Amino acid sequence: MQLLWLSLLPCLYLASLCSAEQGLEFPSFDGKDRVLHINERNYKKALKRFDMLCLLYHEPQPAHKGRQKQLQMTELVLELTAQVLEDKDIGFGMVDSQKDAKVAKKLGLEEEGSLYIFKDDRVIEFDGEFSADTLVEFLLDVLEDPVELISNPMELRAFERMEEDIRLIGYFKGEDSYYKAFQEASERFQPYIKFFATFDKTAKHLSLKMNEVNFYEPFMEEPAILPGRQLSEMEIVEFVHQHKRATLRKLRAEDMFETWEDNLDGIHIVAFAEEEDPDGYEFLEILKDVARDNTNNPELSIVWIDPDDFPLLTTYWEKTFKVNLFKPQIGVVNVTDADSVWLDMSNDEDLPTAEELEDWIEDVLSGKVNTEDDDDVKDDYDGKMLFLHFP
Amino acid sequence: MQLLWLSLLPCLYLASLCSAEQGLEFPSFDGKDRVLHINERNYKKALKRFDMLCLLYHEPQPAHKGRQKQLQMTELVLELTAQVLEDKDIGFGMVDSQKDAKVAKKLGLEEEGSLYIFKDDRVIEFDGEFSADTLVEFLLDVLEDPVELISNPMELRAFERMEEDIRLIGYFKGEDSYYKAFQEASERFQPYIKFFATFDKTAKHLSLKMNEVNFYEPFMEEPAILPGRQLSEMEIVEFVHQHKRATLRKLRAEDMFETWEDNLDGIHIVAFAEEEDPDGYEFLEILKDVARDNTNNPELSIVWIDPDDFPLLTTYWEKTFKVNLFKPQIGVVNVTDADSVWLDMSNDEDLPTAEELEDWIEDVLSGKVNTEDDDDVKDDYDGKMLFLHFP
Repeated sequence: MQLLWLSLLPCLYLASLCSAEQGLEFPSFDGKDRVLHINERNYKKALKRFDMLCLLYHEPQPAHKGRQKQLQMTELVLELTAQVLEDKDIGFGMVDSQKDAKVAKKLGLEEEGSLYIFKDDRVIEFDGEFSADTLVEFLLDVLEDPVELISNPMELRAFERMEEDIRLIGYFKGEDSYYKAFQEASERFQPYIKFFATFDKTAKHLSLKMNEVNFYEPFMEEPAILPGRQLSEMEIVEFVHQHKRATLRKLRAEDMFETWEDNLDGIHIVAFAEEEDPDGYEFLEILKDVARDNTNNPELSIVWIDPDDFPLLTTYWEKTFKVNLFKPQIGVVNVTDADSVWLDMSNDEDLPTAEELEDWIEDVLSGKVNTEDDDDVKDDYDGKMLFLHFP
Repeated sequence: MQLLWLSLLPCLYLASLCSAEQGLEFPSFDGKDRVLHINERNYKKALKRFDMLCLLYHEPQPAHKGRQKQLQMTELVLELTAQVLEDKDIGFGMVDSQKDAKVAKKLGLEEEGSLYIFKDDRVIEFDGEFSADTLVEFLLDVLEDPVELISNPMELRAFERMEEDIRLIGYFKGEDSYYKAFQEASERFQPYIKFFATFDKTAKHLSLKMNEVNFYEPFMEEPAILPGRQLSEMEIVEFVHQHKRATLRKLRAEDMFETWEDNLDGIHIVAFAEEEDPDGYEFLEILKDVARDNTNNPELSIVWIDPDDFPLLTTYWEKTFKVNLFKPQIGVVNVTDADSVWLDMSNDEDLPTAEELEDWIEDVLSGKVNTEDDDDVKDDYDGKMLFLHFP
């Protein structure tokens, strides 16, 4: 089979191969070039022409054939995304970090491999999974209003259910009020942080006072409060920056690489748990308890990964970390070499209690448990837990 | 750009293009052939060799170049899936419907384009989105135990939260009991229908009697009950078949084409609602109420599509059905030509009530609202709702 020309193709997929029925046709690339090659002559025109312009800042054309193909495939992902979003007035372009260095500097592009989205006067950086799926979903989110209005108890329930997301809610008199500052602040974080507002008595259910803004960290029940007063955009922005590093956060395709980069001293505490699985759900609830108890510890940040969200990475993680992902797992990962240590939970019946988990986390934070102890000691720990060190 | 060789490539994606960190590497196809070409000489050996064998039953090698590429891409999806699952003892093969007609007949392969999974003495048909993501996740699910044990209140809560899924739960003395019949029945429906069992007092919370099996239709609060008695595998299988057509079901990537084929007289009532969106959530709650009220109507089956689950289809649906998917929508779709009629909900403030929705559904079922009325009448309906007919 002559598939070498595709040997760099990472993960692709296809529509169903046969179907008498209509209504579920997945798009296939039609071969039409929609992605612009941006340079000094055309970048201003491109910025003017579209409501939104997405520029991929990429490495120079590589000499290596394999890397050339990879760049071609990346462009193809962008082409397919452009095709799918054809009617949404979004422009797409590529900027070569060497040939177009001047333009890149003018536009403030810095990280090779990132996609920069220009919308109004803002720039949004996308550093997630570079797939047409994820990109399309992300860009559709950017097209939505940055603030969602909540106007009845059912919508409030929807808001309350979004525990995985960082979200803010503000109570204002109406559109013509400090809401404007809130809206402007929201644009700076769209679509990563969700902003909601209410103009009516729905606010009472949240005990929101007029002009008050509440910030919900993921999985936390109690919000951080920005008291009701004359609000400026910058105050709200400052407030978000102050709180946005979460104690427990879920790895999401749309900003997975950014999250991974945001580690503490090169280390992540990583928890794997399938929410759809009874065991995984139980473990996650324990984890949330621990996070709630330690939400004020700036040293602590746990990344929760639901393997169901990343099927193509599951076996890679199992190999790299030497863990079984059919079960919940928690460990410490060194992001520079993917070296890791995992809490032994081999006894199926007994997930650790919140207290036991906290003890272990304390040992991680104090350095007592770390990825560098590569000796083969497999001792009983605390008379209860067992640590396996994988070199 | 010379991308014509990929013009049939539907939807592909790539890992991040740059990352100093380790731990999130998406796989790329390594070029090694793992997918077997199955024929009369090797099929028995293949069945013996692997715990699980996945055979793609495909059309004969087409003369048309485009279709040839498409078949190659399909094989590539299978190759990548095989690579990712390399350590799981799963075999992969292709069966040509013409050249290997005899083998196909022996193995019972019937639908071109379907993937057939042979596990123990069972055959599972996969008729979902043919992507590496979806396939890997599906096959990992097939590898899990077909029955999950529930042994504490937290796990029970996980069970209760899975309202989107068809699920059964049984209460048994232990592994050595009628549980065996339950387990055998579960294997026939894995992974499409979820089976749970409990051996302890957790059952009390569900008021389950010994040997009783409860069947939960998606979104229903009350189960159908198979009373506790001497259970046989066939009784349970019969019970599942009797109840498995759901009044409201969510479109899932893993069996989307099968669901679409399972229409009533070529028609689907389709509801679009983003669960993550306050509006969408509210509409979905109304829809659930309607479904609960009409769960005994065998004529009624509503397919709920969350656009977030199918980003690449969203704009295609918007074009095909001429609807705005930033908002909830409900309509009737003719699956033979994708002709459709949608309930007008253009007034943002007023989603229809459950009663109004029921009236409309009644009109759909009686044929008063249908996709064939292609005249341009845009009359007020019932003094309240407005229908737009799209030819």
